[in-house]
Amino acid sequence: MATHPRTHFENDRLSGDFGATRALSSAIAAPLSDADATIQPMPDASPAKWHLAHTTWFFETFVLRDHVPGYRVFDARWPFLFNSYYNGEGDRHARPRRGMLSRPALDEVLAYRDHVDAALAGALPDLPSEALILVELGIHHEQQHQELMLMDMKAAFAENPLAPAMWPASPQCSGEGRNPVSQDGAAGLRPSPEHINWIEGRSGLAHIGHDGRGFAFDCEGPRHPLLLAHHALADRLVTNGEWQDFMADGGYARSEYWLSDGWAWVQAEGAAAPLYWREGAGGWQRFGLDGLQPVDPAEPVCHISYYEADAYARWAGARLPTEGEWEAAAATLDPGAGNQLDAAGPVRPLAATGSGLRQMFGDVWEWTMSAYLPYPGFKPAEGTVGEYNGKFMCGQFVLKGASCATPRGHSRASYRNFFYPHQRWMFSGLRLAKSL
Amino acid sequence: MATHPRTHFENDRLSGDFGATRALSSAIAAPLSDADATIQPMPDASPAKWHLAHTTWFFETFVLRDHVPGYRVFDARWPFLFNSYYNGEGDRHARPRRGMLSRPALDEVLAYRDHVDAALAGALPDLPSEALILVELGIHHEQQHQELMLMDMKAAFAENPLAPAMWPASPQCSGEGRNPVSQDGAAGLRPSPEHINWIEGRSGLAHIGHDGRGFAFDCEGPRHPLLLAHHALADRLVTNGEWQDFMADGGYARSEYWLSDGWAWVQAEGAAAPLYWREGAGGWQRFGLDGLQPVDPAEPVCHISYYEADAYARWAGARLPTEGEWEAAAATLDPGAGNQLDAAGPVRPLAATGSGLRQMFGDVWEWTMSAYLPYPGFKPAEGTVGEYNGKFMCGQFVLKGASCATPRGHSRASYRNFFYPHQRWMFSGLRLAKSL
Amino acid sequence: MATHPRTHFENDRLSGDFGATRALSSAIAAPLSDADATIQPMPDASPAKWHLAHTTWFFETFVLRDHVPGYRVFDARWPFLFNSYYNGEGDRHARPRRGMLSRPALDEVLAYRDHVDAALAGALPDLPSEALILVELGIHHEQQHQELMLMDMKAAFAENPLAPAMWPASPQCSGEGRNPVSQDGAAGLRPSPEHINWIEGRSGLAHIGHDGRGFAFDCEGPRHPLLLAHHALADRLVTNGEWQDFMADGGYARSEYWLSDGWAWVQAEGAAAPLYWREGAGGWQRFGLDGLQPVDPAEPVCHISYYEADAYARWAGARLPTEGEWEAAAATLDPGAGNQLDAAGPVRPLAATGSGLRQMFGDVWEWTMSAYLPYPGFKPAEGTVGEYNGKFMCGQFVLKGASCATPRGHSRASYRNFFYPHQRWMFSGLRLAKSL
Amino acid sequence: MATHPRTHFENDRLSGDFGATRALSSAIAAPLSDADATIQPMPDASPAKWHLAHTTWFFETFVLRDHVPGYRVFDARWPFLFNSYYNGEGDRHARPRRGMLSRPALDEVLAYRDHVDAALAGALPDLPSEALILVELGIHHEQQHQELMLMDMKAAFAENPLAPAMWPASPQCSGEGRNPVSQDGAAGLRPSPEHINWIEGRSGLAHIGHDGRGFAFDCEGPRHPLLLAHHALADRLVTNGEWQDFMADGGYARSEYWLSDGWAWVQAEGAAAPLYWREGAGGWQRFGLDGLQPVDPAEPVCHISYYEADAYARWAGARLPTEGEWEAAAATLDPGAGNQLDAAGPVRPLAATGSGLRQMFGDVWEWTMSAYLPYPGFKPAEGTVGEYNGKFMCGQFVLKGASCATPRGHSRASYRNFFYPHQRWMFSGLRLAKSL
Repeated sequence: MATHPRTHFENDRLSGDFGATRALSSAIAAPLSDADATIQPMPDASPAKWHLAHTTWFFETFVLRDHVPGYRVFDARWPFLFNSYYNGEGDRHARPRRGMLSRPALDEVLAYRDHVDAALAGALPDLPSEALILVELGIHHEQQHQELMLMDMKAAFAENPLAPAMWPASPQCSGEGRNPVSQDGAAGLRPSPEHINWIEGRSGLAHIGHDGRGFAFDCEGPRHPLLLAHHALADRLVTNGEWQDFMADGGYARSEYWLSDGWAWVQAEGAAAPLYWREGAGGWQRFGLDGLQPVDPAEPVCHISYYEADAYARWAGARLPTEGEWEAAAATLDPGAGNQLDAAGPVRPLAATGSGLRQMFGDVWEWTMSAYLPYPGFKPAEGTVGEYNGKFMCGQFVLKGASCATPRGHSRASYRNFFYPHQRWMFSGLRLAKSL
Repeated sequence: MATHPRTHFENDRLSGDFGATRALSSAIAAPLSDADATIQPMPDASPAKWHLAHTTWFFETFVLRDHVPGYRVFDARWPFLFNSYYNGEGDRHARPRRGMLSRPALDEVLAYRDHVDAALAGALPDLPSEALILVELGIHHEQQHQELMLMDMKAAFAENPLAPAMWPASPQCSGEGRNPVSQDGAAGLRPSPEHINWIEGRSGLAHIGHDGRGFAFDCEGPRHPLLLAHHALADRLVTNGEWQDFMADGGYARSEYWLSDGWAWVQAEGAAAPLYWREGAGGWQRFGLDGLQPVDPAEPVCHISYYEADAYARWAGARLPTEGEWEAAAATLDPGAGNQLDAAGPVRPLAATGSGLRQMFGDVWEWTMSAYLPYPGFKPAEGTVGEYNGKFMCGQFVLKGASCATPRGHSRASYRNFFYPHQRWMFSGLRLAKSL
Repeated sequence: MATHPRTHFENDRLSGDFGATRALSSAIAAPLSDADATIQPMPDASPAKWHLAHTTWFFETFVLRDHVPGYRVFDARWPFLFNSYYNGEGDRHARPRRGMLSRPALDEVLAYRDHVDAALAGALPDLPSEALILVELGIHHEQQHQELMLMDMKAAFAENPLAPAMWPASPQCSGEGRNPVSQDGAAGLRPSPEHINWIEGRSGLAHIGHDGRGFAFDCEGPRHPLLLAHHALADRLVTNGEWQDFMADGGYARSEYWLSDGWAWVQAEGAAAPLYWREGAGGWQRFGLDGLQPVDPAEPVCHISYYEADAYARWAGARLPTEGEWEAAAATLDPGAGNQLDAAGPVRPLAATGSGLRQMFGDVWEWTMSAYLPYPGFKPAEGTVGEYNGKFMCGQFVLKGASCATPRGHSRASYRNFFYPHQRWMFSGLRLAKSL
Repeated sequence: MATHPRTHFENDRLSGDFGATRALSSAIAAPLSDADATIQPMPDASPAKWHLAHTTWFFETFVLRDHVPGYRVFDARWPFLFNSYYNGEGDRHARPRRGMLSRPALDEVLAYRDHVDAALAGALPDLPSEALILVELGIHHEQQHQELMLMDMKAAFAENPLAPAMWPASPQCSGEGRNPVSQDGAAGLRPSPEHINWIEGRSGLAHIGHDGRGFAFDCEGPRHPLLLAHHALADRLVTNGEWQDFMADGGYARSEYWLSDGWAWVQAEGAAAPLYWREGAGGWQRFGLDGLQPVDPAEPVCHISYYEADAYARWAGARLPTEGEWEAAAATLDPGAGNQLDAAGPVRPLAATGSGLRQMFGDVWEWTMSAYLPYPGFKPAEGTVGEYNGKFMCGQFVLKGASCATPRGHSRASYRNFFYPHQRWMFSGLRLAKSL
C-alpha cells in the first residue's frame, strides 16, 4: 500500500470512511441471531461473529495498541481467538474450530466493536501518519471481510434444511433480474452464446499493476509493462441460461472439457451444477441470501469453481481471459460503477443491461487463467501486516473485477482477488475470451 | 419395557414424573445462550438445542401424533431435523451437521416444548394404556438425554479457549470433594491401591437382567441365570490420585499394559491423561461444568476410555468386573442412592466416604469387561421405538451403575449403558475386580 | 498352551509335524512368482513372502536363538522385517508397508527357510522341553499363517483385472460342488430356508474351553462351566442360493435387518454381495483360488462380514449361535473331519452332503454372536510369545469350526478364531440358530 | 509437436533413435527382479514393469494398431492395464493400484516389448509420415518414462529398510563428486552463498517457446515475445552444504520463510530435510540409486519441493527465476551438455566445475516461480495423444533444464517440466535469482 503525506481533508475522509465501513459491517450482521453468528459451515468459512471481532482486533492491535499510548486491550484473552494468520502476532485458535466459540456472545463482540470504534475515533485526529496508513489498511481489510461475511453466512444458511433467508427477496431487484430479456419476445427468452459480442482488446505493450496513487494492497504492484497478444473479450458475463445449455449438453459428464484436476474434482464432489443449485419439482432453484429462488436464466452464473469456468470455456470454444487482458480492458472503466454492495441486503448478480463492455465491475468476480503470483519486483509490505498476500502466492488463480457483495469503492482495475481452483463459495463467475 | 395395567395412582405419578423431567431439562439448559445451545463439538455429541427438541419430538410423534386425534404438529418441517435414528420415521438431518442449525432458535425450541407439554398434559388423563407406556418410555428417554446434554455441553465448552464454566463451582461440594482424606493425616493424603478393600462377590448360580416389574429398557431383559466364578470387587472406584501414579509409572507409554487397539488409540490420539485434563504451571487441572479446576486426587477418575480402564487394571494387577459380577453385587443396593443428578448444576464425581461396597450408583459409570450383546432370548421392542438398543449390539462395552450426571431414579442394577471402547466424553470411570 | 512331559514318541511326532507343516507352506507358495509373493493387497493382509519368512523367524528367534547355543542368525537385518507384533522383540517394519519388500527375494526367503529347517531338525532331538513347547507352538502358528497365505493371495489376485487363478479349478471337486442337489429333481434345484433341519442343542449346564490335554492356544482356556438356554442349531451352513434369495429380497437395501454399524458399513462400502462376487452377463461369479467361476447355489456362502451374517439371520427370522452353543454341539464331533486343507490347491467350501449336524468343521468359519473376550480366569502365556491372543480381546467376534483353508488337525471344538465385524477376506460363513 | 516432411535420412535417424531408446529402457530395468519391477511405493509413482509396458502400449496403440494393417494386439486384455490417462482410449486400471499387478510378469512384459519392437522395426520403412510423427512422439514419451523409472525405483527402494542399491556406487563418479572443493584448501571446504557469482540476465523484449524446428511437446509453443525485467541468475545450483546452513539456521522451523501452503506442508509431513536424507551416527546420509551414501556438501541439493525451494530463496534474500528468465539465459547454451543420462547407472547430481553459467542442463531440474499455464495461442495436439500436457495446466510449477536422470537429447531450452509444489521425488533442485 502506498505511503504519502496526508492533509486534514484526508483525515476527515478517513474518519468518514472508517465510520461508514464499521457501520456497514454491523448492518450486514443485523439480521443474525447470536447462534447464526456463531456457526461455521466449513473450514474455509468463518462465523460472522469472528469476522466482526477479527476486523476489530486488527484496529485494536495494529493501531490502538501500537500507536495510542495508554490504550487498554478490551480483553487480553481475545487476541488468541481473533488473530487470523499473523504468525508475528503469536499463536491463535485453530481456524477449523472457530465455530466452537459460542462465547464471547454476539453482544459482547458488538460491545468490543463499540469500544474500539470510540477509542479509534477519539485517537484519529492525533494519529501519526504511519498509523493512519494502518487505519486505511484496516478499512480495506474490513471491506474484504464484509464480502466474506456475506459468503460465509450464505454457506452457513445453505446447510440448514429450512433454507432460511437472511433478508427477504428484494422485489424490484428481482423484477429487474427476472425480466431483462422479455423485450426479446417469446421466441428468444434465453440468451445463448450467439448473442455474445466480442470486443477486441488492446494488444502489444500494456501496463498493469497499481501505480501507487491511492490505496492498494501490496500484491497489486509494482506496475509493470507486459505484452498482450491479439484477443477479444466477451461483452458480458456467461449467464445461468447458457450454463444450463452446458449442463444439458453433458458438460459435467464429459471428461474432454475438464482439466485433469478438475475431472477428479467433479468425480469426488459429484458436481453437476453450480454451488447452491438444487433441482426441484419446478426446475432448478438456487439458494441465496434471499432463500431459495428460481434460477433466473438471464442472470450471470455464480458460485462456480475455476474448474467449472475452464470447462465451460472449452465447451464454448473459447478460453478465460488473462489477468493482463482483463486489466487492460478495465483500465478506463469506472471501478465504482455496476452492481456492487451499497447497503446490507440480499445482493445477487443481475442480468446485463445496456451495451458495450458490461459487468466488468460488480455482479461476480471473474476467473482469469492467470495464476496468482508476484509481479516483477514485488516486495511484501513490511512487518506483521505484510504477512498476508504474499504468503498465498501458490496454487491459486486471480479473479478480477468485483461482485455484488463487494463494497463499492473497494475494488479497482489492479485489484487481484485469488482463490484455489476448487473453491466456489465466493461470488464467482466468468467472462469468455478468445485469441484472435 | 414391561406392559401392565395402570391405576389412577400411576397416572398421577406419570403426570408428575413427566412434569418434573421436562422441567429438569429446561433447568439444565437455563445457563445456555442461543449460541451455546447450537454448537456441536464433535459428531458423537449433539447441540443442547437438539436434545431439547428431539426429546419433544419423541412425545409429539409417538404419543400426540399417534394417539391424540386432532393434534396438529407444531412445525411440519421439524421432524426431519429432530428425528435421531428411527429409520421407520423417515429421513433425517445428518448427525454430524446438527451444529449447523442456528434456526430454529433456542426460544423457538422452548416454545415447541411448551406447546407439546401443554398438549400432553391435557391429553394424559385420557390416553390409552399403550400411549401411557410411550409416555413412560419418553420420560426415561429424556432422562438419558439430560445426561447427554451435560456431557455434550462439557465437550462443547471444553473446545473454547476461554474455558467457560456452565455453572459456578459449588463450594460446599468442592469442600466435600477435596478433603475427604484429610483425616488420614499428613502422611497419607493420597489414597493408594493398598487402601482398596476387596469384597468377595457371589459365585455360582446368579440371575441378572430385569425381572419385568417396573420400567426397563428392552435390552435389560430377559432375566436369566448365569454362573459366576470366584471373584472380588474393589470396595470403591479408582481415584485421580491412583491414576496419577499410573501416569507417573509410564502407564501411557508402555505397550505391555494395552490392548492392541488401545495402543493404536494412544498413538493416534497422543493420549497421556484422562480427557479434559490439562497440565499447567500449578499441576494438573481438569475442565468441568464448573470450568477449570485442580484435579482432586481423592475424587474418582472420570472421562476415561475402555482402553484406559483396561490398561490401568492390568497395571494394577487386576481386571475389570464382568457385567454379571457387578449386577449380582448391586442387586441388593439402592439404585437411588449415591451421587446422582437431582438438580441442574456443576455435577462431578466425589470422593468415597463411609465403608463397604461404595459408589456403585452415582459418581461415574463403571466400565465392565462385558461386550454389549443381547441376553438369551432378547427381542427388540415392537415398532419404531424398538429401533434402538438392539441396533447397537456390536463393538461396544457395558458400563454399569450411574454417574453424577444421571438423573436419580433413572438407573437400576439391570441398567446397561454402553459405549465404544475409545469413547470417553461420558462420565466414565472404573472399579477394579479380580479372580480368586 | 499346556505344558506336560514329553516322550520319545512325542518327539518323533513333533519332528514329523514340523517337517510336514513346513513342507505344506512351501507347497502353498509353489505357484507364486517372486512378484506374486511380494504384493500386499491391503493393510490387513500380508505378502506370501512375508508369511514364509515370519513363520521362519518365529522358529529362529524363540527356538534357535534362545535355546540352541551357537546358532547364528541367518541375517541380522531381517528380524526387523519379519517380526509381526511382538513388542517384546523390538521395533519392526510397519505392517501396511510390507508390500514394499521386493528384497529379500522369494528365493532368499526360501533359502532362509531351508537354513532354519536344517538347524531346527538338527537341534530337535536335544531341545529342552520348554523349547519343544515352542516348536509345537510354532507349528500351530505356521498353520495359522498357511490359512492366512491362502486368504491373502486370494485378496491379492482379486485385485488383478486379469483375475489370475492360483491353481486350475479342480474338476472332480467342482463336480461334487455343483451338483449335490440334483437328486432333488428339476423342481428343487436350490435349497431354501425351509430345508433346514433344526437340531436342538444341549441346554442347562455345559462346559466349554480347552481342558489342557494336548495343544491349545492360551485364549481357549480355562475350561469353565456355563448355562445354555433352550436353542437349536441349523443342521447345515447357509448356502449361496439362500444368500441370493436374501439379495433378491432387498437384503442389502433394507436398514431394518442391519446393526447400526453394519448399515453404516453397507453404505460406506457400497456392499451388495459377498466379497469376491461379481455380476456378469451370465449371472453371478465368484473369484477364488481357481479364478473366476460361477456362483454355485448349493455351496455355503463364504466371505461375508459379521454385519452380513447378522443381517441375514434377522432376515431369516433366526440368529447366530453363541460360542457356547456351538462348542457344546461340536464337543463330540471329530474336529479332523470335513472339508479342510490337506494339500495345496484351490480349496473352496462344498455343498453339504449326508444328514445330521453337518459342516461343523471345514468349509467355512462360522460367525458366532459372541464377542472375543477372555474366559473367566484367563491368563496370557508368559513371555513374548504371550503377546498375542489376549491383546486382541476387544471389538472382535468369535468364529468357530474350521474352513476349507484350515490345515486339517489345526482346529478343535475349543478353537476360537476371531475377526472384526467388518472383515470378510477370511473364509467365513454362517449357520443359523434360534432360541426355543 | 511440429509436423514437417521427412527424408530417408530422417527415417534412418528415427529408426536408430527408436532402437537406442528402447534399449536404454531395458538397460535401466536390467538390475530389477520381477518383484522389484512390480511394487509401487506411492500413487504418484508407477512400477517399473508398468513403465516398460505402458511405453510399449503407446507404440502398439497409436502406431501399430492405427497405422499397420493386420497388426494383432499382443494381448487384448492389456490395454486396460497399461493405458495411463488417455480417456479417449477407454477405461483403465486405477493408478494407485498399479502395484497389484504381479501378473503379467516382468518376463512377459519384456516379451511384449520384443514383439512390438520387431513389429515396429519391420513397419517403420513404410509408415506414413503421420505415423512417423507418432513414432517420434513415442520416443520422447519413452524418454520421459525412463526418468520416471529412475525416480520411481528410487522411491520404491527407499521404502525398503534394507536400503538396497540399484547399482553399486560409481567410484570415479563419487570421486569427482566428493572432492571438487578440496583444491580450495582447509579454509574453504564448503561453498557458501558468498561464492555465488550473479550473472545479469537479458532484460526487455525476449522470445520464449519452441520455434517449431525439430521435435517439441505441444505445451512448449507457440513461441512468443515477453518482457523481462532487470534480473540476475546465480551461476550455479544451490548445494547440499548451503542447504545444511539453511537447516542449521532453523529454516524448516521458521514460518516467515514459507508460503502458507508450504508451512502447512512442513507441519503435515514433519519435513526437516530433503527427501531421502537420513540422519545417522556419522551425520547426514542420502539414499540414492547407489544406496545410502554420505551427503556431499558440494553436490547440488536434490529432491526438494517447490515449497522448500521457495523458502530457501527467501532465507537467502533471493528468489526463484521465472521461466522466461531461465529460458532466455539458456537459449544459447547446448542442451545436450552437462550431467545427463547416457547409460543406465547410479546417476546423481554432481558438484559444479568450471565457471560461467553452469549446470543449466543436467544435474537437477530447476524450480521456477512460473506456474505451468498455456502460452498465448496454445492449442493442444489433436486427437487422443493431445490428451496430455494441456490437461495438467493447473496448480503446478514449471521446472527447467534437465537432470542427471534425463536422457541426453531429450530436453531443450523450451522444455517445460512441471510438478505440484509438494512433490519432490523427482530430481529437483534450485538456482537462485534476484531482481536488480
